[in-house]
Amino acid sequence: MSDLRIAVLGVGAMGADHVARIAGRISNARVAVVNDYLSEKAEQVAASVPGARVVGDPFDAIAADDVDAVLLATPGPVHEKQLLACLENRKPVLCEKPLTTEVATSLEVVRREAELGTPLIQVGFMRRFDPEYQQLKALLDGGDLGQPLLMHLVHRNPNVYPGFDSAMVVKDSLVHEVDVTRFLLGEEIASVQILRPTPNPSAPAGLQDPQIALFETVSGRHVDAEVFVTTGVAYEVRTEVVGEKGSATIGLDVSVITKTSTGRWGGKISPGFRERFGLAYDIELQRWVDAVRSGRNIDGPTAWDGYAAAAVCAAGVESLETGQRVAVQLAQRP
Amino acid sequence: MSDLRIAVLGVGAMGADHVARIAGRISNARVAVVNDYLSEKAEQVAASVPGARVVGDPFDAIAADDVDAVLLATPGPVHEKQLLACLENRKPVLCEKPLTTEVATSLEVVRREAELGTPLIQVGFMRRFDPEYQQLKALLDGGDLGQPLLMHLVHRNPNVYPGFDSAMVVKDSLVHEVDVTRFLLGEEIASVQILRPTPNPSAPAGLQDPQIALFETVSGRHVDAEVFVTTGVAYEVRTEVVGEKGSATIGLDVSVITKTSTGRWGGKISPGFRERFGLAYDIELQRWVDAVRSGRNIDGPTAWDGYAAAAVCAAGVESLETGQRVAVQLAQRP
Amino acid sequence: MSDLRIAVLGVGAMGADHVARIAGRISNARVAVVNDYLSEKAEQVAASVPGARVVGDPFDAIAADDVDAVLLATPGPVHEKQLLACLENRKPVLCEKPLTTEVATSLEVVRREAELGTPLIQVGFMRRFDPEYQQLKALLDGGDLGQPLLMHLVHRNPNVYPGFDSAMVVKDSLVHEVDVTRFLLGEEIASVQILRPTPNPSAPAGLQDPQIALFETVSGRHVDAEVFVTTGVAYEVRTEVVGEKGSATIGLDVSVITKTSTGRWGGKISPGFRERFGLAYDIELQRWVDAVRSGRNIDGPTAWDGYAAAAVCAAGVESLETGQRVAVQLAQRP
Amino acid sequence: MSDLRIAVLGVGAMGADHVARIAGRISNARVAVVNDYLSEKAEQVAASVPGARVVGDPFDAIAADDVDAVLLATPGPVHEKQLLACLENRKPVLCEKPLTTEVATSLEVVRREAELGTPLIQVGFMRRFDPEYQQLKALLDGGDLGQPLLMHLVHRNPNVYPGFDSAMVVKDSLVHEVDVTRFLLGEEIASVQILRPTPNPSAPAGLQDPQIALFETVSGRHVDAEVFVTTGVAYEVRTEVVGEKGSATIGLDVSVITKTSTGRWGGKISPGFRERFGLAYDIELQRWVDAVRSGRNIDGPTAWDGYAAAAVCAAGVESLETGQRVAVQLAQRP
Repeated sequence: MSDLRIAVLGVGAMGADHVARIAGRISNARVAVVNDYLSEKAEQVAASVPGARVVGDPFDAIAADDVDAVLLATPGPVHEKQLLACLENRKPVLCEKPLTTEVATSLEVVRREAELGTPLIQVGFMRRFDPEYQQLKALLDGGDLGQPLLMHLVHRNPNVYPGFDSAMVVKDSLVHEVDVTRFLLGEEIASVQILRPTPNPSAPAGLQDPQIALFETVSGRHVDAEVFVTTGVAYEVRTEVVGEKGSATIGLDVSVITKTSTGRWGGKISPGFRERFGLAYDIELQRWVDAVRSGRNIDGPTAWDGYAAAAVCAAGVESLETGQRVAVQLAQRP
Repeated sequence: MSDLRIAVLGVGAMGADHVARIAGRISNARVAVVNDYLSEKAEQVAASVPGARVVGDPFDAIAADDVDAVLLATPGPVHEKQLLACLENRKPVLCEKPLTTEVATSLEVVRREAELGTPLIQVGFMRRFDPEYQQLKALLDGGDLGQPLLMHLVHRNPNVYPGFDSAMVVKDSLVHEVDVTRFLLGEEIASVQILRPTPNPSAPAGLQDPQIALFETVSGRHVDAEVFVTTGVAYEVRTEVVGEKGSATIGLDVSVITKTSTGRWGGKISPGFRERFGLAYDIELQRWVDAVRSGRNIDGPTAWDGYAAAAVCAAGVESLETGQRVAVQLAQRP
Repeated sequence: MSDLRIAVLGVGAMGADHVARIAGRISNARVAVVNDYLSEKAEQVAASVPGARVVGDPFDAIAADDVDAVLLATPGPVHEKQLLACLENRKPVLCEKPLTTEVATSLEVVRREAELGTPLIQVGFMRRFDPEYQQLKALLDGGDLGQPLLMHLVHRNPNVYPGFDSAMVVKDSLVHEVDVTRFLLGEEIASVQILRPTPNPSAPAGLQDPQIALFETVSGRHVDAEVFVTTGVAYEVRTEVVGEKGSATIGLDVSVITKTSTGRWGGKISPGFRERFGLAYDIELQRWVDAVRSGRNIDGPTAWDGYAAAAVCAAGVESLETGQRVAVQLAQRP
Repeated sequence: MSDLRIAVLGVGAMGADHVARIAGRISNARVAVVNDYLSEKAEQVAASVPGARVVGDPFDAIAADDVDAVLLATPGPVHEKQLLACLENRKPVLCEKPLTTEVATSLEVVRREAELGTPLIQVGFMRRFDPEYQQLKALLDGGDLGQPLLMHLVHRNPNVYPGFDSAMVVKDSLVHEVDVTRFLLGEEIASVQILRPTPNPSAPAGLQDPQIALFETVSGRHVDAEVFVTTGVAYEVRTEVVGEKGSATIGLDVSVITKTSTGRWGGKISPGFRERFGLAYDIELQRWVDAVRSGRNIDGPTAWDGYAAAAVCAAGVESLETGQRVAVQLAQRP
């Protein structure tokens, strides 16, 4: 089979990364179409890739005959319509999180896909493809730790862009821990509670940071997750699973160890998610390309995973306001 | 000044350890009197130490002319009366935790000591003397991490003796994390909540294990503490402080690293608290001896620290039953 | 430009890996031709890749019109003729180590390439592309450690195949440390001495294992390298550079950390070079493909690097016999 | 038995440390006599310890009736006569390294002690008492690593005092690695060779630093030891034993791990030997006191260990000049 022809919708930082990835590091795929609401940006990115053309209307891009699959890196608010167009055109789509910005519309997307009887939508929770998470998942599945009993999660960013507010901590940052929890434990989250520890004096006004989230799963497992997005340090993601026969931790960031005239030993922390998860994005994309070419269409998190994450985050945002534990109400899975 | 003459009350495992410590590793002190409700045990331990004699009645031991100070390693229920006797006799006393078994009696002890106008009671929270905790405290006090915002604590035992119940997890194990929190953050705990994650299938019936405790301090700092006493692994105590300018972790247990035909690298975890905190006990005792000989009498946690820990644990036991957050009501400090 | 059409010569374990890599993970390249002296093996591998055909004669494969570049994974003894054929046909070639099996023929290859005036040969020292080595090289080049003064290298394999002899320890294993030394220090090795420590009782008869190699560079830097290929443990490669302002170490293998009922904490060591350096091979190949398509032809170790490594290893084999320090005589670089 | 009465000869930095140690942390011992060639210094130190008196002549101090044992912290050149006086007076003595400054006089001391038929001299190789070395020794003796095959040693100081020359690197620094090698491998060193890598530009003129020492033991084991005393970093001592069934490393210096706004994680390296080996000195001294009080007199390295170290270092100094391997000639052990 020939190369998979991909339309990349939205070529901001993340979308442009994906274009470069497909053009330079992904086998059996090529960027056929580039679309962005800023036409100049689209032209510029398309020019960097031999054989790519700009299509001004995202729905035309989705429908184009020379497009086999779609990579959605547009802003969340336009995901719903673009996903539905992909479904209508029977085009496999890799959709950067969030699936959609509302729980109800996420569920609608799940239902529409289910009616088609064929999976078409994969959601971009890239951590599932990170080698460390893969090894941790394999360790859990292999039973060496016995049944997992609880987890401790840490998610730290050095800083966030202006305007990042308390609810975005939940929907943009904590959402990854929501998916990690569901992925590693293999069950749904039943309730969520957000605690507000002493705020970081350096955090912008109006931003509750750090936050501690407490998840309880359907079977009763507890997970605590620290999310702290203005640490001023670097990008740290740490995951510890405590099982009945032992515990396991990933995210220790050990690579080059130096000892210098500071009288200290140690190493660098990843400066950002691109450095920490760049390889995961490559693997995610290559596996998705392979899946689409083989007709399986997806090989990773499903639309349901996107919906469930949205539902947990919505409950989290509610808890952020009340401080109380909020139950997560999931629809019947179609 | 000549050697400090110590009466050791209670020579079970812990008390006998202290006798050996004083006899073999502590400078400027000697065991003058040994007491235990099992007279045979007392005779046996006293025989191992040149110059020590057995006194059958603990109150006679406290009052004896050739006793300068008392080390209390008796069971918790008899602490109250023995501490009051020490106060009455103006004898400095190092009291193994708990101060007393009830919040009210702990407070009474605090008040009686305050009436004397001289500190006489030190409580055996030995972790404060562990070199790693000392360094962590110094780091916090030095301001390098900025203001501490939250902490993550882990306390794991490989197993517990038969009859260890859910409330003892709080009063015997979590109590150390209570003191560590108060020590490192330098303020009182305002509320406590105990969560019940998926129970360890290997835990004895009736024992809720693991438990997750959430503390909130007076100033609003949050602390989560996992206590898991039937891990089957080893003795792990880990403390992470997250501050506004960085974080710090102790308890990583790195000493000898081996690589063997298991295809694995790594090291041993401390098998138990004696191995992990043995040096801390030595330092605690030497510093206490020095303090008593110098007339300062205590150099470490006070009776108030014992009372405050008792109050937090009592609230913890209440939360263990209800699952709700319970406020900690401390008396006015005398 | 269209995909680079590659002929893979030799599809044993390593060559077959490269075929799968090009077919599945490398962008802008495809396997056009497969060749192996076992025609059945060639057929089988070619069948796994859409569009690949078998060519029975390696020189026909090199000369084929639909072949833009050659990947040489054939046994060392046939490298010389195949490399010369590549040069004659002006085909860029990525040659797995060794360049050739003799110092003299390696030099001849270097000279023939130099006469063409265009670089065509890249040698497969894949470690240069490993992210840790890349970071270490960047650290050295950045000057943070000051001038490098000496290095400690460790290279351990769990076991080797039957027939692996003492000289192969030098030529097949130590050769990587030779290249790492030249790469990191940026200068030639002037002498080599091989020490014979107490032999591993589990090593096969006739195999001197472990060995310690001492390199001295032209400027006087010393490097010690332990090579131990029957450890029974796993695949360990560790590199420590000691500079005037500090030291740096890579190869610590920290990924998932577990704590289990063995009472131990730790992680896995890479079972073999494929696991340890798999990503390095991917990066090497993608960068070579990019270089060939851009007309630069090589982006990594040159034929000279292959020649220099051969010369050092030849001196090492001599020292293995005599125990004495042997000077390395390099030809004038063409 | 009453407290051991110790005469401390030489109260420079190290001797004064020992006085404070005996007075404040060692059980069953007290400083009875203080001696120093600077009488003012002796007075000052004695004044800090209740019950200690100054004796102006070291031989009077050794002979004094109220002195049970001697701690020798005087300069090396006077050790010989003072040790012989201890032997003559049958006083157990803990002698800081070196035993004596010459191989011949060291051997003479060994012989004189042997004639007495009773061990009286212990040499202050304190590393043998460090908990990590103790664990490593136990690991080797337990056989888990199989037979030890080779070792890699690293010894780094941040700086040295003015006048520290190349031979002192061997006699004052490398000597510890000599003893560690003999202790861990349990056999004598048969030859030594000193290599001169690229000198550290920051080292004082005339100081060859770093140095690499190669030891070969009687049974053929090889040990390489880097000694680098002007690193500008901190005090690092690392020991790796490679055995037939695995390897083990100590000296990783992991205690408090911080992550700060430097974007780095890591910990402190010990600033100096006092911090790194302070606990080892305490253990050494307590065990020596216990041994003397029990009549065993020594519990640690013997005069022979001091002699053997001197012989290896003398060979090392010779090799430092010639660059050649120098055989170590040990006398018949009396």
